[in-house]
Amino acid sequence: MKIKRRKSRVVKIGKILIGGNNPVAIQSMAKSKTSDTEKTIRQINELAGCGCEIVRLAVKDMADARAIKKIKAGTKLPIVADIHFNWQLALGAIESGADKIRLNPGNIYRANEVRGIISALKDAKRVLRVGLNSGSVKYSGSRLSMADKLVKSCLDYIKPIERLKFYDIVISLKASTVLDTIEAYRKISKVCDYPLHLGVTATGSPASGAVKSSIALGSLLLEGIGDTLRVSLTDEPAQEVKVAQYILRALGLRSFGAELISCPTCGRCEVDLVSIVKELEDKLPVNGKTSPVKVAVMGCVVNGPGEAKEADIGVAFGKKEGLFFKHGRPLKKISFSNCADLLLKELKSL
Amino acid sequence: MKIKRRKSRVVKIGKILIGGNNPVAIQSMAKSKTSDTEKTIRQINELAGCGCEIVRLAVKDMADARAIKKIKAGTKLPIVADIHFNWQLALGAIESGADKIRLNPGNIYRANEVRGIISALKDAKRVLRVGLNSGSVKYSGSRLSMADKLVKSCLDYIKPIERLKFYDIVISLKASTVLDTIEAYRKISKVCDYPLHLGVTATGSPASGAVKSSIALGSLLLEGIGDTLRVSLTDEPAQEVKVAQYILRALGLRSFGAELISCPTCGRCEVDLVSIVKELEDKLPVNGKTSPVKVAVMGCVVNGPGEAKEADIGVAFGKKEGLFFKHGRPLKKISFSNCADLLLKELKSL
Repeated sequence: MKIKRRKSRVVKIGKILIGGNNPVAIQSMAKSKTSDTEKTIRQINELAGCGCEIVRLAVKDMADARAIKKIKAGTKLPIVADIHFNWQLALGAIESGADKIRLNPGNIYRANEVRGIISALKDAKRVLRVGLNSGSVKYSGSRLSMADKLVKSCLDYIKPIERLKFYDIVISLKASTVLDTIEAYRKISKVCDYPLHLGVTATGSPASGAVKSSIALGSLLLEGIGDTLRVSLTDEPAQEVKVAQYILRALGLRSFGAELISCPTCGRCEVDLVSIVKELEDKLPVNGKTSPVKVAVMGCVVNGPGEAKEADIGVAFGKKEGLFFKHGRPLKKISFSNCADLLLKELKSL
Repeated sequence: MKIKRRKSRVVKIGKILIGGNNPVAIQSMAKSKTSDTEKTIRQINELAGCGCEIVRLAVKDMADARAIKKIKAGTKLPIVADIHFNWQLALGAIESGADKIRLNPGNIYRANEVRGIISALKDAKRVLRVGLNSGSVKYSGSRLSMADKLVKSCLDYIKPIERLKFYDIVISLKASTVLDTIEAYRKISKVCDYPLHLGVTATGSPASGAVKSSIALGSLLLEGIGDTLRVSLTDEPAQEVKVAQYILRALGLRSFGAELISCPTCGRCEVDLVSIVKELEDKLPVNGKTSPVKVAVMGCVVNGPGEAKEADIGVAFGKKEGLFFKHGRPLKKISFSNCADLLLKELKSL
């Protein structure tokens, strides 16, 4: 089974292309006050280090908008300015070099204001994200479903922008439920070719948030929908990037270094597999630069040899001892105690 | 959007009905040696306490098979005996009262052995799971895709069993990749009406395993496929149950007490939202008994009031202070410091 991606228009955010056949780009958001440039630069560079490709910053006041200039000088990721309520902040952010402006149709909608922003975006050749959220969508009094409110509000917003011949647009329609989010993106995917930024808003605690994002973003990507994504978690931003990587890797859309395959263990397992898996997970390099490798660590002879054979390298444990596999062939017996070290050494040599 | 479930046959495992319109049941597996009855009973009762509804035990030898009798006396969950290689263990487990037997067509396949087990299942009125895994599937030399190998091997296995007029069958086709798993279940769902037990095998570390399971099981359930599920994680079994609950809740298929909705925070947020969310997550009751309630905790005025309004109770923070909502209406201002206590108190009164 292969995923057939929806055909979307390509837009360029800084050096990153999204849409078309470009890799689904991973975004996150700095959680610092933007005008605290030292903290914000540090956070962006940390995010870049763990695989984030586009970063968004809250622009709450003119100090934040102005800070983008200094932040861009100290970082390499494309910067998206998140604007709400005050359209002048968008002009300030564009002036400071923001690569993309996110507008929320729920709170910046006056015709002259939108026109002013589009004119500045056109002159500066920057991108617009029309970003709707269930928490601030209009038509709130109407009887439309949440998905229809998001889609209708988005299309209404874009129409006058297209009349200005501006098409460097990315769309997001984030609801706080999985079903509303999936329905909204499915619908918008059929009526326009703008690249789609996927996300679920207000997902909740880190664990349940990762599950909600995985289901919603995962099902949409499986249907070919989605050009960039942001996993929202009430947690450290680096955690958002990690979950985004897991989602894309699980679907075979991108690879990020070594992938671990391990069994859940059961009454058959006679070694402490959980500890090896934890150790490997900490030590395995996860980034977009290394080639994809599968490493299997299995606790018994039921599925162990089969999974170890399918992986690039793997070990299937029996009593205390494990059988080491490389490229599908059993090579030697290894002891539990040096299993992690051996797998890491073999990985390096691949 | 509502999920339309596939029409499947109903089977009864102990007191639990699966298939048809019955709730998608949550399974996990004890990780102790089954014949260590004290440990196994403790683990099963812990699993029951956190919402597990069916539990599987590895039956590696006759001591494990015999132990099921004592384990059943000390626990209340339906017990599934996991059998590999040795068909006599299945007879022993049925004799000891196992409610369901899981057979792996990859390692118990001789006609007389399968016939012997089916005869014992029929006499004792117990259920069979035909459980295939990518790590032990047959046809391994053929050119079929992994999904086709799983489906074909399963159908071949079931045919002679149906000739014995035995139909109390549950099917699982677990691959270690998300795409193979989805493809296999989609295919089998169209060619039989047996209830399907969903799972991804050998998912890897807890974090990436939760993501893989959420995508695979989530997309299948979204398509109406799946009657019971097991999330496999190289982690504590209670964690498997939690992720399973999050998946079912996210899709609106089941409810498990209070659900937290919270924003990821950004440069706009002026309170330590992460700490409140952690506190609430720890203290909120999660089980199948309480009625579904949504609790929103939002960090700013952009989406805060909207999400808080949609929830049963919620708070949207501004500078230090929050606005408390109940059933969609703003009621009063509350301070950050007593927010968690207030929400928990209000929850109790609902």
